[in-house]
Amino acid sequence: MKTHQDQMSSEEQKQSTKNDFTKISVGIVGGTGYTGVELVRLLVRHPAVGIKVLTSRTEAGTRVDAMFPSLRGLTDIQFSANAADELAECDVVFFATPHGVAMNQARELLAQDVKIIDLAADFRLQDTAEFEKWYGMPHVCPDLLLESVYGLPEVNREAIKSAKIIGNPGCYPTTVQLGLLPLLQQSSPLIDPNSIIIDAKSGVSGAGRKAEIGILFSEASDNLKAYAVKGHRHHPEIVQGLNGMHGGQLVAAAFDKLTFVPHLVPMIRGMLSTIYVRLTDAGCAADLQMLFEQQYQNEPFVDVMPFGSLPETRSVRGSNHLRIALHRPNNGDLLVILVVQDNLVKGAAGQAVQNMNLMFGFPETMGLEVVPLMP
Amino acid sequence: MKTHQDQMSSEEQKQSTKNDFTKISVGIVGGTGYTGVELVRLLVRHPAVGIKVLTSRTEAGTRVDAMFPSLRGLTDIQFSANAADELAECDVVFFATPHGVAMNQARELLAQDVKIIDLAADFRLQDTAEFEKWYGMPHVCPDLLLESVYGLPEVNREAIKSAKIIGNPGCYPTTVQLGLLPLLQQSSPLIDPNSIIIDAKSGVSGAGRKAEIGILFSEASDNLKAYAVKGHRHHPEIVQGLNGMHGGQLVAAAFDKLTFVPHLVPMIRGMLSTIYVRLTDAGCAADLQMLFEQQYQNEPFVDVMPFGSLPETRSVRGSNHLRIALHRPNNGDLLVILVVQDNLVKGAAGQAVQNMNLMFGFPETMGLEVVPLMP
Amino acid sequence: MKTHQDQMSSEEQKQSTKNDFTKISVGIVGGTGYTGVELVRLLVRHPAVGIKVLTSRTEAGTRVDAMFPSLRGLTDIQFSANAADELAECDVVFFATPHGVAMNQARELLAQDVKIIDLAADFRLQDTAEFEKWYGMPHVCPDLLLESVYGLPEVNREAIKSAKIIGNPGCYPTTVQLGLLPLLQQSSPLIDPNSIIIDAKSGVSGAGRKAEIGILFSEASDNLKAYAVKGHRHHPEIVQGLNGMHGGQLVAAAFDKLTFVPHLVPMIRGMLSTIYVRLTDAGCAADLQMLFEQQYQNEPFVDVMPFGSLPETRSVRGSNHLRIALHRPNNGDLLVILVVQDNLVKGAAGQAVQNMNLMFGFPETMGLEVVPLMP
Amino acid sequence: MKTHQDQMSSEEQKQSTKNDFTKISVGIVGGTGYTGVELVRLLVRHPAVGIKVLTSRTEAGTRVDAMFPSLRGLTDIQFSANAADELAECDVVFFATPHGVAMNQARELLAQDVKIIDLAADFRLQDTAEFEKWYGMPHVCPDLLLESVYGLPEVNREAIKSAKIIGNPGCYPTTVQLGLLPLLQQSSPLIDPNSIIIDAKSGVSGAGRKAEIGILFSEASDNLKAYAVKGHRHHPEIVQGLNGMHGGQLVAAAFDKLTFVPHLVPMIRGMLSTIYVRLTDAGCAADLQMLFEQQYQNEPFVDVMPFGSLPETRSVRGSNHLRIALHRPNNGDLLVILVVQDNLVKGAAGQAVQNMNLMFGFPETMGLEVVPLMP
Repeated sequence: MKTHQDQMSSEEQKQSTKNDFTKISVGIVGGTGYTGVELVRLLVRHPAVGIKVLTSRTEAGTRVDAMFPSLRGLTDIQFSANAADELAECDVVFFATPHGVAMNQARELLAQDVKIIDLAADFRLQDTAEFEKWYGMPHVCPDLLLESVYGLPEVNREAIKSAKIIGNPGCYPTTVQLGLLPLLQQSSPLIDPNSIIIDAKSGVSGAGRKAEIGILFSEASDNLKAYAVKGHRHHPEIVQGLNGMHGGQLVAAAFDKLTFVPHLVPMIRGMLSTIYVRLTDAGCAADLQMLFEQQYQNEPFVDVMPFGSLPETRSVRGSNHLRIALHRPNNGDLLVILVVQDNLVKGAAGQAVQNMNLMFGFPETMGLEVVPLMP
Repeated sequence: MKTHQDQMSSEEQKQSTKNDFTKISVGIVGGTGYTGVELVRLLVRHPAVGIKVLTSRTEAGTRVDAMFPSLRGLTDIQFSANAADELAECDVVFFATPHGVAMNQARELLAQDVKIIDLAADFRLQDTAEFEKWYGMPHVCPDLLLESVYGLPEVNREAIKSAKIIGNPGCYPTTVQLGLLPLLQQSSPLIDPNSIIIDAKSGVSGAGRKAEIGILFSEASDNLKAYAVKGHRHHPEIVQGLNGMHGGQLVAAAFDKLTFVPHLVPMIRGMLSTIYVRLTDAGCAADLQMLFEQQYQNEPFVDVMPFGSLPETRSVRGSNHLRIALHRPNNGDLLVILVVQDNLVKGAAGQAVQNMNLMFGFPETMGLEVVPLMP
Repeated sequence: MKTHQDQMSSEEQKQSTKNDFTKISVGIVGGTGYTGVELVRLLVRHPAVGIKVLTSRTEAGTRVDAMFPSLRGLTDIQFSANAADELAECDVVFFATPHGVAMNQARELLAQDVKIIDLAADFRLQDTAEFEKWYGMPHVCPDLLLESVYGLPEVNREAIKSAKIIGNPGCYPTTVQLGLLPLLQQSSPLIDPNSIIIDAKSGVSGAGRKAEIGILFSEASDNLKAYAVKGHRHHPEIVQGLNGMHGGQLVAAAFDKLTFVPHLVPMIRGMLSTIYVRLTDAGCAADLQMLFEQQYQNEPFVDVMPFGSLPETRSVRGSNHLRIALHRPNNGDLLVILVVQDNLVKGAAGQAVQNMNLMFGFPETMGLEVVPLMP
Repeated sequence: MKTHQDQMSSEEQKQSTKNDFTKISVGIVGGTGYTGVELVRLLVRHPAVGIKVLTSRTEAGTRVDAMFPSLRGLTDIQFSANAADELAECDVVFFATPHGVAMNQARELLAQDVKIIDLAADFRLQDTAEFEKWYGMPHVCPDLLLESVYGLPEVNREAIKSAKIIGNPGCYPTTVQLGLLPLLQQSSPLIDPNSIIIDAKSGVSGAGRKAEIGILFSEASDNLKAYAVKGHRHHPEIVQGLNGMHGGQLVAAAFDKLTFVPHLVPMIRGMLSTIYVRLTDAGCAADLQMLFEQQYQNEPFVDVMPFGSLPETRSVRGSNHLRIALHRPNNGDLLVILVVQDNLVKGAAGQAVQNMNLMFGFPETMGLEVVPLMP
């Protein structure tokens, strides 16, 4: 097989010339998990990016395409172990690692002018006490946390552009925040902030590429269950995000009252959050569909479907799109908001690339023009 | 292969002698759908039953085990087309047919002293206007409807024993009614009747064995969606059931306010209803776990799991059990009730056999002692 | 929930009286794997068996129904750690353990008159050099190995009845041996012994309940691959079995020539072996369908389907049946033999119970009258 | 959502300028099946193509993105019913229709200088008697059939470039022909032509988007079966292809002797053909791995993996790649060739686009640079 590198090289050179982009150097820490290999899938075709280094403690020396043959012909990069020097030479480093890794390497990288996008939780929660409570470790760099930006472009686009550290949102929080954003930014309250119930469903890849019994094929296939009903780490992240949108009105109320019940669904990729909220009188009177359409009319990745639509997770399989549909059963005061995304793309690696594009002045959709795979 | 009939015959004779049961003759109208073949699976081993006739307009003359090789060696019965005479000789006839079939044959069968268990909706809704609205056809025998009994043993056991016609409950309504029953029978209201939200999830077999694009493997696999958010036929059945439990207090309120959002999950069998209700002060103060355990302590098929459990659909795969678990996130006023069942068993054919057992004085669990298939 | 023990007890007492069987005491070593819990599924309803002890080093003290809620209401047994004494009091002990465990405990149990059924490989291969080569450990009790019987009832029924140690066959070898048995017992060779190609496909549960990346849902779902093409441990077992049937004629030839390529299929249970053999002139002239039907006419668990049938794995889901169908494309000299079974039942735990029934003089099908779960 | 058309337009204009390609107009007849919508997925991003017309008798007037929401934001094209005029204005028309449609419209389109790529079988078999036998209809334009080219680029690249009609290969035949090609082009025979056995496995999407019971989720999921063992329409196509490679030596022999057994696997996309051939002495002596690597060294879409590799279908999910691995168990005379592809891409729509690229002088990989979706 002629590799695409060989074949494409002259064309790609023209392309990068044409685009007037100098390619940036990218590092990925933790390349063997699903978010890591998903970053490679997206970046290996990104016209303004070169993957300089990909780390793995356990797989150092292995070619990434030996581990993931889907990448054969696309890259000949190997996993590196101790790669501090190479990471320091990158323009940006993605952390596709367990919680707690990025915050320990952040200061050194920043000192070398390397930007950071953390796909774990180290830079998501501004309240370090909350972080410590939910993640079981102290935060080692609260000062950097203060500087960091929560990487939800539809909310924080301008701040992201100039950020040095991005806390890339969790998968569930992305669906919930984008599903509720248009409702929370109005001057008069459209919903009862105490009424929010989120019945969320995720494909199994959301649990990561870890050798655990509960996510074996023979355990998770042909099966359905709720999990983490007692408390999920995405709960405080959702509350923080909603509070931020609402001018602080939800702060005290939401934390106790917001209900979040995730479920594990036998599919590889895909996330559907079914969000239930009670409308106020103002909410009942408002044209909610128009509100959502206006909110997202210029967003490249948020699709407000016609009122009453039934979005399917497969309609975004492999793509960075998130689709939203509104329902009001019997035209009553309960609004049902259906939100779907691919948990590994808009819910993780795709959103991280979207953030990178913003940080480096690339077109926001660059490298993300993947048509969803259907069926 | 030696068939089990041959091999078991002497043992079975002893068995029927021992049990002092005269075998009853059973007919099944509509044996080619999933509820029909599920009835055969359960009845072919039922020690007090002989399947006398199995009808299908399209498959008349075909052996049932030619169509469903899982039954090879267990029965040599063929599908019959026009079987009015044979049905009239049965002790009981199950209708595993589309809505509207049973009510057209009921009067003639009753005249021959044949009992009827309808797995479709003809005898579920007592309000014929509601029936007509949701099923798009007038009810042809309102007088028989009045005599019929809604076949939910945990609610109507005594009435079922002497019933001539059973309206076998829908799958979703079974989970919701049993999930809420203990809360609705108390003298002081434990929950706000206007607050009920049911986020329900079903395996694909619930859609039946019909040649439809939407339930093809390549459409339904690796995918998730909500459906029928605008209105599902099980909605009025749920409301009727809850009203019945609550002494009529819910009548006016519930119909508009109860929210029911079903989802299609890529698994063959299994149903999980996640039910959200707001507790009243009395509800917050009550020992709800004890309430549920007491309600179901003598029920052979309802399992109240320890508080905070996470029931999985596979834990009831192939069996007539339904499992319930309670959660109160942050110990607040929202109660989350998780209910799982096999939609084809407790949600359809198994419950029908349970009703039959009650109607004929057999032990309620007879023929239903199937251990769930795990994994 | 009223447990079945309570409810059934009087009936079961009658049952055991009626059957005139004294219940035997059974031990299971290694109850947390799929073959272990499958043994529990089958034995918990077996009328002549009481499960006395169930061991697990890691789960000692845990109730089995806490780990496997599908068993709630059926048993209150707990996992034990060091259970040498209790095992010694059993009538029979099943080893559902990794290879190498049974042979280390066999002598002590035999000394206490406890029979042994090993579901691993310790007592499958009579050639200890072969065992050592494929399993990477020396055999610790070659003398007991000599006494042991290979537990394939359709071949060794009489020997099994008086055996003290059973080497329960591997899943693939069961399909291959029963698929070829009728062809290898004839006086004149019907097939070219050098021509056998076995293209075998297994559901993922065949890989066991182990925390390994390769069998995660997100790895094994929506995917297909061959594996172990360089050599699979079931290869020598198949060769040994075929040699035994063929009067030794295949010994030298088969080992080099037999081709066995297993594949991993995204389903939980089920195994399909597609076996290709070249017919000799005698084979072409023979009535092969009749040959197969005669061979298995009295077998309770082997179903020879009509010539040209297409057996599906789901037709045996959860049951101890194995189905065979023959094809001769274009009526040529190539015979295609399709064999399906549930890898956890006839391919493991079900066959073990069948062996137990033979060893203790119970009806061979006792406890195995499970109707396959379809769909 | 801002549509990609709007957003990309200026960039795309530059792109098409840069590439110096005039966009061609494309028609797709039969856009509602899986190969049709897969063509849209690939062509909607193809820089040198505009989709001018998409036909469907049943869905005329419907927007394609209303039927397939995965395409929302990518196209606003509607299905057309009678579109003869618009098709006549296209540069090329793809037929993603049932067999027999393309041959009835071919002459008229050719008269208008429209090139044709038929994804059905009308232009695959040069022997019209064979066509009639297997497809049950006479061929209406044998003269055009003679002019047509079998669209397997790795075999017929030069002829494809100047072809007016392409018979796009079947999915199974693509895997088998590319899996055997290097072996059949040698001067001295490397394999026994009578020994070929193809044990092929396909995902369910290969059966098309048709409302049929057998491919329902509840039928095909968690299940495995062989099918069409008595004869599959791809059999004569495979034989024709192999004969062509082999200089006609296989003609008489192969048709009777080649064995082809397809299986239906519970996955959406993916095809694995396990091919077994007996090597001649020359074959045993040859460096087969090198032979395969040399054959395909310049092929952009055929990947010869290292000897002994185990290709997985997911490694090509959504991409036009086909991967091959060789095995020689025990270094004997049996060669096992493992070939994987995505049945809807290299096995159908992707190969059709590859053919189009060749016919119009575009880079062969244009529009096909999709990274496989893993997991």
